[in-house]
Amino acid sequence: MPKVTFLPANITVEIPETETIIRAAMKAGLHINASCGGAGVCGKCRVFVEGGEVEGEPLPEGGYKACTLYPKSDVTIRIPVESEVDRRALLRPVKKVASAWLEAREAAQVSIDPAIKKIYLKLEPPSLENNMPDLSRLETALLQNLGVERLEVNWRLLRNLPYRLREKNFETTAILFEETPPKLLGVEAGNTTKRHFALAVDIGTTTICAQLVDLVSGKILGETSDYNPQISYGEDVISRIEFARKKDGLKILHEKVIECLGKLAQELCQQNNINPEELSHYSLAGNTVMSHFLLFLEPRFLRESPYVPVASRFPLVPAKDLGLPAGEQTILTLAPCVASYVGGDITAGVVATGMAKEDPLTLFIDIGTNGEIVVGNKDFLACAACSAGPAFEGGGIKHGMRATIGAIEAVSIDPQTLEPMILTIGNKKPKGICGSGIISLLATLFIEGIIDQSGKFRRDLNSPRIREGREGWEYVLVWKEESATGEDIVFTEADIDNLIRAKGAMFSGYQTLLESVGLDITMVERVILAGNFGSFLDLEQAIIIGLLPDLPRENFYFVGNSSLMGARMAALSKEVLAEMERVAQMMTHFELSAHPGYMDYYVSALFLPHTNLDLFPTVKELLQQIG
Amino acid sequence: MPKVTFLPANITVEIPETETIIRAAMKAGLHINASCGGAGVCGKCRVFVEGGEVEGEPLPEGGYKACTLYPKSDVTIRIPVESEVDRRALLRPVKKVASAWLEAREAAQVSIDPAIKKIYLKLEPPSLENNMPDLSRLETALLQNLGVERLEVNWRLLRNLPYRLREKNFETTAILFEETPPKLLGVEAGNTTKRHFALAVDIGTTTICAQLVDLVSGKILGETSDYNPQISYGEDVISRIEFARKKDGLKILHEKVIECLGKLAQELCQQNNINPEELSHYSLAGNTVMSHFLLFLEPRFLRESPYVPVASRFPLVPAKDLGLPAGEQTILTLAPCVASYVGGDITAGVVATGMAKEDPLTLFIDIGTNGEIVVGNKDFLACAACSAGPAFEGGGIKHGMRATIGAIEAVSIDPQTLEPMILTIGNKKPKGICGSGIISLLATLFIEGIIDQSGKFRRDLNSPRIREGREGWEYVLVWKEESATGEDIVFTEADIDNLIRAKGAMFSGYQTLLESVGLDITMVERVILAGNFGSFLDLEQAIIIGLLPDLPRENFYFVGNSSLMGARMAALSKEVLAEMERVAQMMTHFELSAHPGYMDYYVSALFLPHTNLDLFPTVKELLQQIG
Repeated sequence: MPKVTFLPANITVEIPETETIIRAAMKAGLHINASCGGAGVCGKCRVFVEGGEVEGEPLPEGGYKACTLYPKSDVTIRIPVESEVDRRALLRPVKKVASAWLEAREAAQVSIDPAIKKIYLKLEPPSLENNMPDLSRLETALLQNLGVERLEVNWRLLRNLPYRLREKNFETTAILFEETPPKLLGVEAGNTTKRHFALAVDIGTTTICAQLVDLVSGKILGETSDYNPQISYGEDVISRIEFARKKDGLKILHEKVIECLGKLAQELCQQNNINPEELSHYSLAGNTVMSHFLLFLEPRFLRESPYVPVASRFPLVPAKDLGLPAGEQTILTLAPCVASYVGGDITAGVVATGMAKEDPLTLFIDIGTNGEIVVGNKDFLACAACSAGPAFEGGGIKHGMRATIGAIEAVSIDPQTLEPMILTIGNKKPKGICGSGIISLLATLFIEGIIDQSGKFRRDLNSPRIREGREGWEYVLVWKEESATGEDIVFTEADIDNLIRAKGAMFSGYQTLLESVGLDITMVERVILAGNFGSFLDLEQAIIIGLLPDLPRENFYFVGNSSLMGARMAALSKEVLAEMERVAQMMTHFELSAHPGYMDYYVSALFLPHTNLDLFPTVKELLQQIG
Repeated sequence: MPKVTFLPANITVEIPETETIIRAAMKAGLHINASCGGAGVCGKCRVFVEGGEVEGEPLPEGGYKACTLYPKSDVTIRIPVESEVDRRALLRPVKKVASAWLEAREAAQVSIDPAIKKIYLKLEPPSLENNMPDLSRLETALLQNLGVERLEVNWRLLRNLPYRLREKNFETTAILFEETPPKLLGVEAGNTTKRHFALAVDIGTTTICAQLVDLVSGKILGETSDYNPQISYGEDVISRIEFARKKDGLKILHEKVIECLGKLAQELCQQNNINPEELSHYSLAGNTVMSHFLLFLEPRFLRESPYVPVASRFPLVPAKDLGLPAGEQTILTLAPCVASYVGGDITAGVVATGMAKEDPLTLFIDIGTNGEIVVGNKDFLACAACSAGPAFEGGGIKHGMRATIGAIEAVSIDPQTLEPMILTIGNKKPKGICGSGIISLLATLFIEGIIDQSGKFRRDLNSPRIREGREGWEYVLVWKEESATGEDIVFTEADIDNLIRAKGAMFSGYQTLLESVGLDITMVERVILAGNFGSFLDLEQAIIIGLLPDLPRENFYFVGNSSLMGARMAALSKEVLAEMERVAQMMTHFELSAHPGYMDYYVSALFLPHTNLDLFPTVKELLQQIG
């Protein structure tokens, strides 16, 4: 990757040739005015190339637009003084590359040994001397092969058994689920042991992510995702539970998710020349509500006190019974849930990280509409759900939006001029602000002293970007002339209030859960951030606003979609599949609101970063540094 | 029951008030001329009442028609000399009442302990302190109740679980299949342990017989039967296997039997105010071909050498998956088969008789198109199928017919006049001759010397009833004036030849099978006759023609539909269900035609009763007596 050295700060970062110089500057913590989100239209982001090869559009007045400038070799870039702000204090090179770390862990803990086994058998073809039934012939060989006395047989395999056996003259492959007693799920003609596939799926409230996994090599053959089509019936789990109460509501939600899952399965199989009937396993993980919809289970009692799921551990389900593209042998498993709002996605994530097998006291955090927290190690696990609300996903934020094309994902503000530098997803004209942009904006406004600790704008700043709008004070991030919507994109005090309440719910959640098990936040030796949201989060900014605890940065890990990874590992390893059950059983669930100290913790957290600055020593130091 | 004393023979028999005097005479072994089958039209069966009260139609010339005369008290009846023949020598009072014997056995060996259990649980309703999932709540209580560590859960029960539990405030009844691990099949609201039902069914090639069984009291709540609708696609198993090869043939046969079974289930449930969804168990027994059709299994390889069934032991099947009226918990079991032509009906029958648990060397015989034989005791069991052909069911017999209304079921012949006495089912004008009538006729013709040992008519008898017809020599049993068809009903030498071959196949079967295990027929201590055919068979006549071995009459037992009884016992007792598997495994199957001595045995048996008369000592004695 080319190295980009910025002058006059003399900071060097590496970026791929496909990334723009403005993104390199954001990575380096350097501000360049830019208000069109990198769409190349505002022309404010002028930089000068002082060395190396670049590709870009020269400006008539000299220099290049940083937002359309790409490095073709190591380059030296000078940022004009009107643009440059050194934010180095805010950034430390600690953000872990999550996937590499997790992949190493996965390789270490997952020896490939799927719970669903394929066993090749060369049976003796029947003769008048040995005309035992097809099934007995197969069973006899299998019992011997497995060294067991009993098998349970899936009656559906009988239908095709005589043809399958005769197709390759009684050379056959049996598909079994390893249990006591083992379950004979299906048979295939000939030796098919080299073709053994699973679909690992994270059933998210918003997105369904699927991977096609080769159970022989352990490789991921393909990956795809789609929005959960249930979104049309409600953005969040609560509104979907409400929808499920309508006539046929539950049926529709069930059918929609099955249809989407089926489509993803078809797509991945087709791309890899696999017949979906060959699939051995759908290994799924999802939150408790998604798991209920998937199995057509009544979600109503999840919502009504005392919040009881129909089931948290789910039996094996023949995938065909759910109407999925599958063979008679294909089984579906769902990661076990812990409680109504701590689901199988969390169990799968915890298992994937390996935290339940190790010593370090670990805090596992999944931030979303419903934030979930797990704390523990190999000796104990405690978990809780925080009703953080949808603010971090852009919900309840005036110009909040999902992380799609045109969403502002990173922001920096010139402390003198209060001019912003914004980057949008896809480098398109900005439409709104997504979660990571919101945190970035909030942290910047706070650290630059534009808002105070309670989230209120300083009234004495003389800038057209700070104004009192119809809904109170606000910061204008993008003027309507440069937005894709034709409207000013603003960030209001009400937005900030929502965000402070959301992050307060999370932080007081960590504190309450830790206190419930007799610990406190300083004892945490490792913080794992799961979920898509975590992947795009700027760690420093999240700490500055008090969303994450102020702990040594080297102890933070971003693991991305650990739910999907857990689902994949469960398909690849019967040990992991069993570990899921063990971990789900081991997790003690705490109802945070039932804890007597919760409200105090919550109220104290409604400050940036917190009422008690001693809980955030590095932020305290930074604030003092800045003055 | 009234006693009927016949003069001049001075023989007394008991018959119900609803039976006719002519049937009493047949029972007493006394001949009364009667050629209309008891339809009251020929007027030949005149008798005189010498004492007691009767109900009947006096004849103008004095006396009554025996075929429409009923005893209302003990009566004395004189048979005029022109009618009366003493056949006492042929009859011994040895015919066992099968059902009483078997019922006593059943009571002795079946303690009511069904494999499908209902367990009533009063669960603690959920609260904020204890809000574990519905399924976990149920499982925890069950594991404790059963003293096991693991349960397997039928995922289908989850759908209704929350409603079922809440309907009676968490008082619930769990339905389990006892196995290792136990299977949780379903749940019901409240305490339903007193309502626990099974359907026991014998799936016969011709008839499907079902009983609704109360699994609490062990009582049979109702019984019904219907022709197997597959008959429209082939009378016997071979022609149905052929039909199954046509497009959709197997599907049609499968659907027809399921439809019929469902109808019988509905009917019995309705009569007893039971919702079919309450059924716990369909306990079925049928021959191997019927079992294949029922489960939609390819029957083709049963017919093609080396005659391999798809399966002989069948997995549990959710009854709903087959489209039967059932709840999600209802399971279906099929009695295990032994070979292509020794099926689950035989296994069930052998289990029902208890012969596999006792010392006496027992010969179990089921006569039908495919006769099945089992020999053995608690130490060993050997079995074989005999291709007897359909002669005993009226097939291949010129005027043969099924045992329905108008079928001649019993025959006697006056040795002087050669005039017959016939009885028909339903006392209607005769249409043809059914199995028991055919044996009765053959035995009578032989013992009265009208045919010889090779089954040929004596050519020197001067009677219009013996004649040479278009198809050879024949006996006219009913003149066309008295038949329901308007045609003479005759019994031909070709018919006799077919019958001799059929009985020869059976008898040589006994001999070959016994020899295969190093025994001979004289060592047999008990003969059990199973099946509908056995129930209507006259034991002496069957021995006279050599269909059954000439053993002491007190060692013969007629057990009727022992397949149905076995199916019922399997529903009532988990021990019996397990015993089915043990017995099926224990039965060594012999292919008779593969035995080197079989042909010799067969050829020797093509004589009445046998080439070697010493094998039939009482028949030999009888023949000598008669001269």
